[in-house]
Amino acid sequence: MEPHGKNLIGLSSSGEGSTTFKSYAPATGVEMDPVFHGATAAEVDRAVSLAADAFPIYRKWSGDSRASFLEAIADEIEAIGDRLLERCDAETGLGIPRLTGERGRTTGQLRLFASLVREGSWVDARIDRAIPDREPLPKPDARLMLMPIGPVVVFGASNFPLAFSTAGGDTASALAAGCPVIVKAHRSHAGTGELVGQAIQRAAKRCDAPDGVFSLIHGAGAQVGTALVEHPQIKAVGFTGSLAGGRALFDLASRRPEPIPVYAEMGSLNPVFVLPGAMAEGGPEFAEGLRGSVTLGVGQFCTNPGLVLGIDGEEMDGFIEATESLFEEAPTATMLNPGIRDAYEKGLVTMEGASNVSLVAKSSQSPDAGRTEASPHVWVTDVASYLENPSLSHEVFGPTSLIVRCKSKQEMIDVANRLDGHLTSTLHGTEGDLVEHVDLVEVLERKTGRLIFNGFPTGVEVCHSMHHGGPYPATTDARSTSVGTSAIFRFTRLVCYQSFPNSALPEELKNENPLGLWRTIDGEMTQDPV
Amino acid sequence: MEPHGKNLIGLSSSGEGSTTFKSYAPATGVEMDPVFHGATAAEVDRAVSLAADAFPIYRKWSGDSRASFLEAIADEIEAIGDRLLERCDAETGLGIPRLTGERGRTTGQLRLFASLVREGSWVDARIDRAIPDREPLPKPDARLMLMPIGPVVVFGASNFPLAFSTAGGDTASALAAGCPVIVKAHRSHAGTGELVGQAIQRAAKRCDAPDGVFSLIHGAGAQVGTALVEHPQIKAVGFTGSLAGGRALFDLASRRPEPIPVYAEMGSLNPVFVLPGAMAEGGPEFAEGLRGSVTLGVGQFCTNPGLVLGIDGEEMDGFIEATESLFEEAPTATMLNPGIRDAYEKGLVTMEGASNVSLVAKSSQSPDAGRTEASPHVWVTDVASYLENPSLSHEVFGPTSLIVRCKSKQEMIDVANRLDGHLTSTLHGTEGDLVEHVDLVEVLERKTGRLIFNGFPTGVEVCHSMHHGGPYPATTDARSTSVGTSAIFRFTRLVCYQSFPNSALPEELKNENPLGLWRTIDGEMTQDPV
Repeated sequence: MEPHGKNLIGLSSSGEGSTTFKSYAPATGVEMDPVFHGATAAEVDRAVSLAADAFPIYRKWSGDSRASFLEAIADEIEAIGDRLLERCDAETGLGIPRLTGERGRTTGQLRLFASLVREGSWVDARIDRAIPDREPLPKPDARLMLMPIGPVVVFGASNFPLAFSTAGGDTASALAAGCPVIVKAHRSHAGTGELVGQAIQRAAKRCDAPDGVFSLIHGAGAQVGTALVEHPQIKAVGFTGSLAGGRALFDLASRRPEPIPVYAEMGSLNPVFVLPGAMAEGGPEFAEGLRGSVTLGVGQFCTNPGLVLGIDGEEMDGFIEATESLFEEAPTATMLNPGIRDAYEKGLVTMEGASNVSLVAKSSQSPDAGRTEASPHVWVTDVASYLENPSLSHEVFGPTSLIVRCKSKQEMIDVANRLDGHLTSTLHGTEGDLVEHVDLVEVLERKTGRLIFNGFPTGVEVCHSMHHGGPYPATTDARSTSVGTSAIFRFTRLVCYQSFPNSALPEELKNENPLGLWRTIDGEMTQDPV
Repeated sequence: MEPHGKNLIGLSSSGEGSTTFKSYAPATGVEMDPVFHGATAAEVDRAVSLAADAFPIYRKWSGDSRASFLEAIADEIEAIGDRLLERCDAETGLGIPRLTGERGRTTGQLRLFASLVREGSWVDARIDRAIPDREPLPKPDARLMLMPIGPVVVFGASNFPLAFSTAGGDTASALAAGCPVIVKAHRSHAGTGELVGQAIQRAAKRCDAPDGVFSLIHGAGAQVGTALVEHPQIKAVGFTGSLAGGRALFDLASRRPEPIPVYAEMGSLNPVFVLPGAMAEGGPEFAEGLRGSVTLGVGQFCTNPGLVLGIDGEEMDGFIEATESLFEEAPTATMLNPGIRDAYEKGLVTMEGASNVSLVAKSSQSPDAGRTEASPHVWVTDVASYLENPSLSHEVFGPTSLIVRCKSKQEMIDVANRLDGHLTSTLHGTEGDLVEHVDLVEVLERKTGRLIFNGFPTGVEVCHSMHHGGPYPATTDARSTSVGTSAIFRFTRLVCYQSFPNSALPEELKNENPLGLWRTIDGEMTQDPV
């Protein structure tokens, strides 16, 4: 079970392109076989046409059939065994233990969406019964439900080569909704992408899915992605990556003759507010937790805590002192690829040159450039300097964080009010602190997608109640999430049936409620038939 | 209770601008007092700043308080009495009976949203309980709900001066969600807008709403609307009107440094498919119904049936013959304003010049230009000519419809497959016809927002199960509706609380479920406490 380097177009493979590339192993500096073939314009068009042909068939699949397909994908991914983890580790340097966990998260996510669509109530079925003798006009029978939006393009993330990539959350939620998916493989882990793509192909065959329900397309530059997003048959886009990349796709999609939604998750600074009680009670433990969260996955998490705010004083001095030795002890480690490492180094240079920003500590080890290593850094500044320098509000993707000394609660709120949109914000303190700082909490509710109390933002639980999203520039669509079962709503639209005979309605809307769904009938939630 | 012509900025009024205009009475050709003052840049900014200041207060209002506010608005609109209908009739020519009905629809809509937010389950509260001893990692407590997105700008429609304007569906759903609203008054019914705006001001005072929860801004050109949409404090836009207008706002909003959603409902052709059974059983009755729907409100409905397809033959001849005399008998009538009448006349000229399009009939009366009148027209062509001429797919806003003779079921499906997005599609026939034409129905499900059986698309019921929307170019956001209680989701975003103490959670997410909401706990729908 090895990657062959061709595009997976529906159930076939195709390598007609002459633009080729190889995967680079960041920890060893070698290029790996095979040669990957960037897709030609004709191959892109073939993948999209197949997806468009598959859509009318796949959208009618029952929730149960879609669930079986998602479960088959999870099974096939597991069946690849260690070879998947080894290839993925070679391409990303993330290490087998982390990737073992990420594989579990990926298959768990597929199975969670399977259970969601097998149960079926997610379609938000609503029925208003007719009132033929209503005055002045009769009320017609109206029935509403969510339906899939059409073929979706997914751009996987480099930093989660399994859970946010080929069979990651975007793919799982789009397939669950009933949308065919075309994945633009991430070139940084093209072999991992292909192995997972082959698993999806096998699952599609096993489940007799229409040819084109899934394709995986390679491309070294922006051309292939642009062609996919501009294709008139594509109806939505999922993306996880940089602000520049996400915004470029959003702009492309908005300028189409028919604009389409782009769900780009573009990361953020994830501010952490350390309230007085936390500083007083647990400064050193907090420092330990912070170091763990900042250096987890070599800081390559969208939810990396890049900004820490606390009230200045002796207790904060103690916390910073604790941080110092912890970051000195932190090992250097291999980043995902040289481009990300170079951007990280550039970010450190910006921090070094920023006025009134001092280095608290960095790893005592020297990073090995041949192993694409990064060195954890932690910095400190004051509120005035932070607010004066807009470059300090830009995410530095990697194992680094900036501590900001606040003179007062009001200064904390001032910083919160000046925040852009972020994926998360975190508060550390006592329950009493939360009461005292309710005004801060209310500002953060308006600026961030997820508020965490006495925890760290890294580690996004995949469950019904999760939100991974937030106001721009954290994402291009503040209304939606890319983790958790609510992610399915991104790939849907409403369809209403007025005065339809029961026999012609979708199962979800039939009088007898054959699927046993929770539905809203005349405004009341019920599992009863009409 | 007369309009004074000033902008309503929060609880005050302000007329600093030197760009002025008057309302024009289409049925009499006279300009009416007062003089309306287009807002200055400073006035626009003041309205938005007030809305931004009101947001942190208004968003925390309980569902019950918001409901009382919406009900107070409905009461205050009714309290204006006949004067509102008279001014509205003078500005629009729509007539007192229709406007009486539309007022009922407007206040009914406000009260429906009131009942929705008073009950409260619409926030889709979800709770996943912690599993501290889960392996390999503990599961945190996570709780999710919908929250308001921020200040919203609403552009009212000319054709529904009450139900889709100042206190129409967009305003009702945004206020229900917890968002302050700034309405850009439609200049075609500026006095009606102001009277309703004053009613909202009175309701805001009665309910002690924060100053700025509502403003009404006048402007004769595009400048005021542009300034509103580009203002960084505005977080979403609602619009009902032309494709050109809606797309221009969408483009403005997408190019902002922080892009925001635009919900533009831009009308459509609303194709009607007459299946064999309907032609056989009820050709003449169908013709009568069609004439009624096409000429209702002088054809000035977004859901006007502008395209009728049937299988050619003797029965279709009979239907067309019936149509002929019905349209000859149809009276000419006053349109909303000279601009709309001129565009209608231009549309008729295009139809006259189109090859293989013949006039079936037009009103036997001559339209009176001084009364801004339009004459109902009905046309006929064949499928080949329809598909060859793209201009026939453009909506002609007014009392006209084009009948297309299809040779076969396949030709009907060919036309359906070539359709753009539409708000509605309608099927007339027997229950057996629907079974026979399931492939046609499936195409229409992908192209339209609402499918109607044996009815007409005009008359959009305001209820939980309604959908008024559809794929582009019917709207700029196929995922959403502008009528029905699902409209509230347009003005919301998700917020997740992780590991928060019960005391610091919003009421909707507290363990004890104090509001008695339907919530999803660990994936199960329930009204139980945690």
